[in-house]
Amino acid sequence: MLRGRVGKKLSLVFSFFAAGAAVAQGSFHNNLMPQPAELSILSGNVPITSQLRVSLDGAQDPLLQRAAERMIYRLEERTAIRLDGSLADQGAGLIQILVADHSLQRPAEGMDESYTLDIQNNAVRLSAQTDFGAICGMETILQLLDSNSTGYFLPAVHISDEPRFPWRGLMLDPGRHFLPVANVLRTLDAMAAVKMNVLHLHLTEDQGFRIESKRFPKLQQLGSEGKYYTQDEIRQIVQYATDRGIRVVPEFDMPGHTTSWLVGYPELASKPGPYHVEHGTGVFNPALNPTLESIYQFLDTFLGEMSALFPDEYIHIGGDESNGEDWRGNPEIVRFMREHHMQSAKELQAYFNSRVEKILAKYHRRMVGWDEILQPDLPSDVVVQNWHGIEFLVQGARSGHRGILSQPFYLDHHYSAEQMYAVDPIPSNSDLTPAQQKLILGGEACMWGEQVDHNTVDSRIWPRTAALAERLWSPASVRDAREMYRRLAVVTLELDGLGVELLSNPERGFRHITGGDPEALRLFASVVQPVDFHERYEEQHTSPLTPMTNVVDFTVPDPLSRLHFAEQVAAYLRSLSSSVGTQQHDADRIALQQTFRAWLNAAQTLNSQALNEPRLTAIAQRRKQWAELSTSALDAIDLIESGKHASESWSRSREGLIKQSGEPKELVDFVILGPINQLFQAASAGSNPR
Amino acid sequence: MLRGRVGKKLSLVFSFFAAGAAVAQGSFHNNLMPQPAELSILSGNVPITSQLRVSLDGAQDPLLQRAAERMIYRLEERTAIRLDGSLADQGAGLIQILVADHSLQRPAEGMDESYTLDIQNNAVRLSAQTDFGAICGMETILQLLDSNSTGYFLPAVHISDEPRFPWRGLMLDPGRHFLPVANVLRTLDAMAAVKMNVLHLHLTEDQGFRIESKRFPKLQQLGSEGKYYTQDEIRQIVQYATDRGIRVVPEFDMPGHTTSWLVGYPELASKPGPYHVEHGTGVFNPALNPTLESIYQFLDTFLGEMSALFPDEYIHIGGDESNGEDWRGNPEIVRFMREHHMQSAKELQAYFNSRVEKILAKYHRRMVGWDEILQPDLPSDVVVQNWHGIEFLVQGARSGHRGILSQPFYLDHHYSAEQMYAVDPIPSNSDLTPAQQKLILGGEACMWGEQVDHNTVDSRIWPRTAALAERLWSPASVRDAREMYRRLAVVTLELDGLGVELLSNPERGFRHITGGDPEALRLFASVVQPVDFHERYEEQHTSPLTPMTNVVDFTVPDPLSRLHFAEQVAAYLRSLSSSVGTQQHDADRIALQQTFRAWLNAAQTLNSQALNEPRLTAIAQRRKQWAELSTSALDAIDLIESGKHASESWSRSREGLIKQSGEPKELVDFVILGPINQLFQAASAGSNPR
Repeated sequence: MLRGRVGKKLSLVFSFFAAGAAVAQGSFHNNLMPQPAELSILSGNVPITSQLRVSLDGAQDPLLQRAAERMIYRLEERTAIRLDGSLADQGAGLIQILVADHSLQRPAEGMDESYTLDIQNNAVRLSAQTDFGAICGMETILQLLDSNSTGYFLPAVHISDEPRFPWRGLMLDPGRHFLPVANVLRTLDAMAAVKMNVLHLHLTEDQGFRIESKRFPKLQQLGSEGKYYTQDEIRQIVQYATDRGIRVVPEFDMPGHTTSWLVGYPELASKPGPYHVEHGTGVFNPALNPTLESIYQFLDTFLGEMSALFPDEYIHIGGDESNGEDWRGNPEIVRFMREHHMQSAKELQAYFNSRVEKILAKYHRRMVGWDEILQPDLPSDVVVQNWHGIEFLVQGARSGHRGILSQPFYLDHHYSAEQMYAVDPIPSNSDLTPAQQKLILGGEACMWGEQVDHNTVDSRIWPRTAALAERLWSPASVRDAREMYRRLAVVTLELDGLGVELLSNPERGFRHITGGDPEALRLFASVVQPVDFHERYEEQHTSPLTPMTNVVDFTVPDPLSRLHFAEQVAAYLRSLSSSVGTQQHDADRIALQQTFRAWLNAAQTLNSQALNEPRLTAIAQRRKQWAELSTSALDAIDLIESGKHASESWSRSREGLIKQSGEPKELVDFVILGPINQLFQAASAGSNPR
Repeated sequence: MLRGRVGKKLSLVFSFFAAGAAVAQGSFHNNLMPQPAELSILSGNVPITSQLRVSLDGAQDPLLQRAAERMIYRLEERTAIRLDGSLADQGAGLIQILVADHSLQRPAEGMDESYTLDIQNNAVRLSAQTDFGAICGMETILQLLDSNSTGYFLPAVHISDEPRFPWRGLMLDPGRHFLPVANVLRTLDAMAAVKMNVLHLHLTEDQGFRIESKRFPKLQQLGSEGKYYTQDEIRQIVQYATDRGIRVVPEFDMPGHTTSWLVGYPELASKPGPYHVEHGTGVFNPALNPTLESIYQFLDTFLGEMSALFPDEYIHIGGDESNGEDWRGNPEIVRFMREHHMQSAKELQAYFNSRVEKILAKYHRRMVGWDEILQPDLPSDVVVQNWHGIEFLVQGARSGHRGILSQPFYLDHHYSAEQMYAVDPIPSNSDLTPAQQKLILGGEACMWGEQVDHNTVDSRIWPRTAALAERLWSPASVRDAREMYRRLAVVTLELDGLGVELLSNPERGFRHITGGDPEALRLFASVVQPVDFHERYEEQHTSPLTPMTNVVDFTVPDPLSRLHFAEQVAAYLRSLSSSVGTQQHDADRIALQQTFRAWLNAAQTLNSQALNEPRLTAIAQRRKQWAELSTSALDAIDLIESGKHASESWSRSREGLIKQSGEPKELVDFVILGPINQLFQAASAGSNPR
């Protein structure tokens, strides 16, 4: 059962020392996500009882102590057992946490996150070089927690673990839709659970300036419509992240995407004001004026203020989608470009970047920017965040620039977890030299904010991002998608337990749209996903003010139900082979028929519910197609079972149904068409060998 | 369908002016909770479209403006329609809000909360004397929102409304289990939704001192284990409450229940320290020493500081369960009592109260206290909160004291909504004079914190407290429990939509205990409720550190499913009458059999799930009884249908099953035994007339 996950660095060693070892092996549930670099399964287990004590290694280390207290609290929540809780500073705790060097009190790029974990002989020993390695190890302990009918326990294992990439990030975009502090904090909890270590906050956008500046207060006062993080809140976020081994990289997107800056400070703009906070979505012309010396004085003060708030070594300056329109429309900027022999807006932006880079250097900060900043003169310690395609990342590495991969991880494009999982920032066939490979720091999932709000964002980030977390942490050889999905279902519950609303917000939506009778809509949501960014942009053109309480907002990308259905169809089709017993075949057939009948019933229920609910009327065509797909699938099964050919007209009309159902409509896409089409084709082929 | 709710002051006028009026009447869904004093249903409705504008009456009134913005936001969330939103200060909004007197900017006892609402001819006109009346009216508008297949609308009505009692309160106890600010804020949202107007915060307890004092910082530093409200947070809570027309009455419980004060200030105690924050539950001996002049200096400073934080006219000084043990054990206190001719601890407490009352008067605050403060010399403007039984409330009123009723509204006793609803603070047979009746200000639901934490508290307060809100707001004649429950189900969804976790926390619990397959446990939770306070105290003896993630914590008092089941059984038993058609009888029988079969299946599912989950093992006997009850109920139906007598041994063993199942066990009580016993008795009687 563990085939396919045993790779170069992932050794699964089964030990059979004690009696009952076979049971121990068979009953070991490997739910770890990300998978560790090395795992040995041993025999036996360590029970969790109310006497459990956790001991630290004697050093006064409040950060580590808080982490241990959080672990105890989470163990208590999950077992309902009140644990002794009193942390012993030294001595014989059941769980001993040993850290070699307590000096690192803030996560930093390249920090040592390795740990080893030994669970055996009624003792748990977690050793790490740094606090942050120990924090990763504690998450592993929590993921190992298992139970039987009478108690909870940690299975005996030896784990030796470390990440493959040092930059395992997630970008949030409170610029488009503001995300209250509570959202950010629970996102940090979720990131820590899957060992991610960089939170990238896209803090400024055309639609909002989301951080308090005391030096330039009109930035947030006029640029945020009241929705921004105070400096106290930023300190709270940074502290919360630090406690979990997560760096916070702030982004101040410039010179484009700056409308919100210019509302309060129109003198920084390339064209005369007044400016208003943007309520639309798209790429807009307003931009800082790179030819003004006053701009650099402003940025010096501003970035100085920000670097005091964000201890991380990196500051992200955005740099994307600066279209140059307002520069070309300003005669003085045009003259400046001519005088400085600049041929294009790109060159002017490169000039701007190099000035900003010097300001950052003054504050001991290194620059990160989107692909667009990759220009010939870019200093080599700048990190480029890739969103134009992996070839730019490779090109950057060839020219000596460090980079992080993002484009395949744009969460609003609704790639499946499997698709994201399959993308390796350094594919096995990479022709980069080892030195160049080292320049590829990792990746970042990007949760752009146009089409999500504070209620829906969790279900768009998670659980998919956990698959990326594994890609970036675990050995490259860990790549069995089916096995990943199995563990993703477990992680989904873990995140739910941390307060992440990936399940509870959709559930609440189902209740509200159906007046408290959610089963049918829940089932509908299990067969669709939201259309991708571009489709929704075409169909709905959301703004920061669009209410996010339509059916689409309670559906999730790549629902796990998709796989269950695909497996159900595959099992049935497999069981058509005469080598499968009749009983098995009947069971597979009946299960599949029950699924389609349940869908038909649910579609009918939704029809009646729609009499009182415009939001169900808004998915009228999808409801109709769903019923037709279900009916046709039942017909297909009947045809297959009868051994008859489907008529040509039947087949043709089903082709049409699949095609129609595959077109984007009413903001949701079906995720069940592939397997249903297989049924249709089997019915059309009429080749039941039974 | 509206019989039983038409009372003296509740006039339901049906108007039939326009064509289609009959439809309009028939389709009017009266989901208002609390029911208004006067309601006339008119014909037609006012559609909600994206052009909706709300206009205020021209006065600059930020509080009213914020309230209108909240209403718009909630309409948007519930319709998914982006509304124009821009508040017009004056003029032709679709919804016009007119307030006669904007001067009242803070809710106060006895404020005018009346409003009238006219919805007709494509206009909504809300008029009120004060902002707080208008705020109540906006909640009514939100509860009137209805929809059909194509759109949302407000039905045409005329409502003239005002509360029956001026004090409609809820007490939270962050003392026992701390409740983070987010809990308090969403509780305020829920209270506002059902027009409650007093939040009573029990801020200090043996187990924790939950508010920051800058004058005596050791109170929270040593007395809270880090869990307390900062003064900024208190200001945030008070502002949030004020915005919703809710007064905040803080309680500083004294002279008993003060262990947490004494950790930092043992010199205030009746016995020498040191003191430690109490982790147990019960009544403890530590008490302030009323004989020390320094106590009154301390309280003068402290209450002065607190009265600057809480603008309400009232401060609650607790005064309950001061057992006098530590007073009797201190020779100096004994001597003081002798010198002052005090016969009992009660008299010493009365002396203490009168001193405290004078301090409060200095800060223009009136005193509230629990029953125990009702002593002969109590000044007449003190309000007594009743917890010893309504007779004490009546006695207080006779002696000229104002009072609020609480005992029947102790939420941890798990009275049903119906039981709470049936208790009128001034019963129709009250022999109090009208002047004495005026002294009864209303009531308060009390959510004591021993057995709830921040995750479970919402599902213990709501929806039951909404029934009390109606009792205190609506005319006494509004008292049809069945009709109340119908609307309670609707309010439940409204509160869920406001972020109250009355549904989502139990749902999360079901997922976690069952590893993501929650149906069976959800069904189990629909047939039980948590045992009441005393039973749980006996069985489990929770402390502030007990994890609240057992099955009991995800069950809720008086689940609405209880009524559905009772009605199903009643319908079946009714349909045994030969006057009911066979088809109806069969339908009722089949529905009931399906219920019991579903229960049996669920019990079996839980049996298998228990193999991996100790928390399901912990309800093993209840699971077994549930299966036995279901099987026996199916047997009973078979017996009834066959027309045969049940054997005496069958009947006797079922009596035993009902009796056993009725004993408190495994922290949950069945709520289905009455109807099941009716089935058993019908089977035993063997008198099927069909």
